[in-house]
Amino acid sequence: MNNKINPERGFAELEFEQRLIEAQKVMKSYKLDGILVTTPQNIRYFTGYDSQFWESPTRPWFVVVPASGKPIAIVPEIGESEFKKTWLDEIKSWPSPRPEDDGISLVKSTLEDLNKTYGQIGAEFGKEMTIRMPVRDLFKLKDSVNTNIVNGSDAIWDMRIIKTNAEIERIKFICSIASDAYNELPSKLRIGDTEREAVNKLKIDVLNRGADNVPFMPGISGVGGVSQIVCGPSDRILKNGDILFIDTGSTFDGYFCDFNRNYAFGEISSEVERVHETLWLATEAGIKAAVPGTTTDEIWLAMNTIIQDAGAIGNNVGRLGHGLGLQLTEPPSHRPGDNTRIVENMVLTIEPVMEYAPGKMIVHEENIAITKDGSRLLTKRAPRQMPIIK
Amino acid sequence: MNNKINPERGFAELEFEQRLIEAQKVMKSYKLDGILVTTPQNIRYFTGYDSQFWESPTRPWFVVVPASGKPIAIVPEIGESEFKKTWLDEIKSWPSPRPEDDGISLVKSTLEDLNKTYGQIGAEFGKEMTIRMPVRDLFKLKDSVNTNIVNGSDAIWDMRIIKTNAEIERIKFICSIASDAYNELPSKLRIGDTEREAVNKLKIDVLNRGADNVPFMPGISGVGGVSQIVCGPSDRILKNGDILFIDTGSTFDGYFCDFNRNYAFGEISSEVERVHETLWLATEAGIKAAVPGTTTDEIWLAMNTIIQDAGAIGNNVGRLGHGLGLQLTEPPSHRPGDNTRIVENMVLTIEPVMEYAPGKMIVHEENIAITKDGSRLLTKRAPRQMPIIK
Repeated sequence: MNNKINPERGFAELEFEQRLIEAQKVMKSYKLDGILVTTPQNIRYFTGYDSQFWESPTRPWFVVVPASGKPIAIVPEIGESEFKKTWLDEIKSWPSPRPEDDGISLVKSTLEDLNKTYGQIGAEFGKEMTIRMPVRDLFKLKDSVNTNIVNGSDAIWDMRIIKTNAEIERIKFICSIASDAYNELPSKLRIGDTEREAVNKLKIDVLNRGADNVPFMPGISGVGGVSQIVCGPSDRILKNGDILFIDTGSTFDGYFCDFNRNYAFGEISSEVERVHETLWLATEAGIKAAVPGTTTDEIWLAMNTIIQDAGAIGNNVGRLGHGLGLQLTEPPSHRPGDNTRIVENMVLTIEPVMEYAPGKMIVHEENIAITKDGSRLLTKRAPRQMPIIK
Repeated sequence: MNNKINPERGFAELEFEQRLIEAQKVMKSYKLDGILVTTPQNIRYFTGYDSQFWESPTRPWFVVVPASGKPIAIVPEIGESEFKKTWLDEIKSWPSPRPEDDGISLVKSTLEDLNKTYGQIGAEFGKEMTIRMPVRDLFKLKDSVNTNIVNGSDAIWDMRIIKTNAEIERIKFICSIASDAYNELPSKLRIGDTEREAVNKLKIDVLNRGADNVPFMPGISGVGGVSQIVCGPSDRILKNGDILFIDTGSTFDGYFCDFNRNYAFGEISSEVERVHETLWLATEAGIKAAVPGTTTDEIWLAMNTIIQDAGAIGNNVGRLGHGLGLQLTEPPSHRPGDNTRIVENMVLTIEPVMEYAPGKMIVHEENIAITKDGSRLLTKRAPRQMPIIK
């Protein structure tokens, strides 16, 4: 069913070596002797380790990226054999679960063995990150280790916010799969379907086309638009005059797409047509604004001017797009005050939102990669007219 | 395609009222003035709030459960309208993302408004939990709020480890869906399929039968068994003599099943037959041992004796089963030293693992609910003979 040529899964060792070189440069500028990571995305970024077992929160996993030398993994025995297949040389493990010492003494000794140039280690303490270990154990580690553990998230984001070409290739592939499935969806939808049935049709098509997983696919409907975009699908039945919003973060080889499409049922009001056209134009403006050298504030402004001029009454989303990659949402944010400088190889969503009447919201979204002098679409552009399901 | 009668999604308000009464009893015994939760599972447990938007790590969400009175939600504006549909009365919100104060001042004032009987608030600091907010903000909150924030995980687990009948009904439903899909899978598998194709067939069937999602479905194969159970599927082609292990944590209404099945390809060696029979009997013994009044250590021993007597050489999983519910894995653990007393309405996996030769492991798993005087199977028992795909 999938006649695309998939990018290979997994990265060449050279890719990880280059990420490490970059990481060690960044660490130097932040005066860090190393970085300690615990989350699926960051561990995968530095090691390539891929597992669905992150769904089990019982055991913590750790990777230490030193200021010189290769990353060191400290993982439960259940993961040891597969970690030995990564490009890392040093894998430490312990029999887990062992709540009285779930890896903490091993992490402590590993951190204490690092060269102490600056006396501080960066950890996932900052924005759009959490730390995946019991906080109780983090406190224990912080209090007993002979170095400071500080916020390393800014350093990590400095690296991850700029994608390699191999990363962009994967995002483009999952965008392309989801685009094709969205484009085929009108032929599968019927008035009388429930939101849940509509989402399931898309989900199964996305899987059949070669996505690895579909961690995020809300589907929400309402007369002339939706009141929110985070909860759904429900068993609501799609009827004449409804707009169905479907969004997806599907994945390939760890990388997300993140974009939505809208479908009208039966008939579409001229007001909805007008708002749809406004958002289509705002998306054009956002894409055009997203060039190296500008800022997220300016991208926001390019879209927001069009939306406000068309009579928007609100936006509970709080921004008009963001970064994406190993996470569905990553820095930066297109919003006033974010003020991130746009550079080549960022991957961004362009996501204008317009509430045009109380509880009636329409959202457009595309994914782009910043090029040397502009951007390129990773998604296949939404149709200028909203598809109507008769 | 689904001719089962689904339990309704969502819980009656009475269910949340009873959870709150229980929570407030437990808080008293732990001397807590309230509990602060940030993770999807705990927020859903106390409020019923269901969203796929947890996949976006950008915005933190908070619920405070006070020692008296109803829970209070402190959520980003993007979630406010749907939170108003829960049974809660008090919803506070702020325009997010706002990294300089992403809900922290609101959480601080909410905690400071609580009655200070004990001067401490429990948070998700302990085992098999993480806290879903930037640690930097947690430190800021801890340092500035006029009460102590301490480990509240034990108190939360005291509640969540014992399921209500309505929770068990949902786990039983998703177990039943996955059981039927596993039973049908042999008719869909072929020698020459890849692991990935095999998993996708099962995944799509599970979705078609009414599962909400499939966050966890590793598929791993090897000659006569597998070397690990956490990474996969890959593009490995299934051939004569292989054993395919597929595990799943699929969900319905927020609740997980967690069990695996094994399929032989072409032919099965007498050694694999012997190990399979050993594990089938160990599962029987584990189920029989799981009765109110016993302990996790004793359940472990009942299984482990049989596995050791049959010549097991190792177990990198570190235990022989665990709790499940809103998480794929929850306390307790069937392992020496866990020593949790088994009581009515716990939901447990019985999961004997046997490595019978280096790198050759076979795993069985069933899900049970503890009853007044024994247990009942939630899964449909694995066949005593491993299905063989010809």
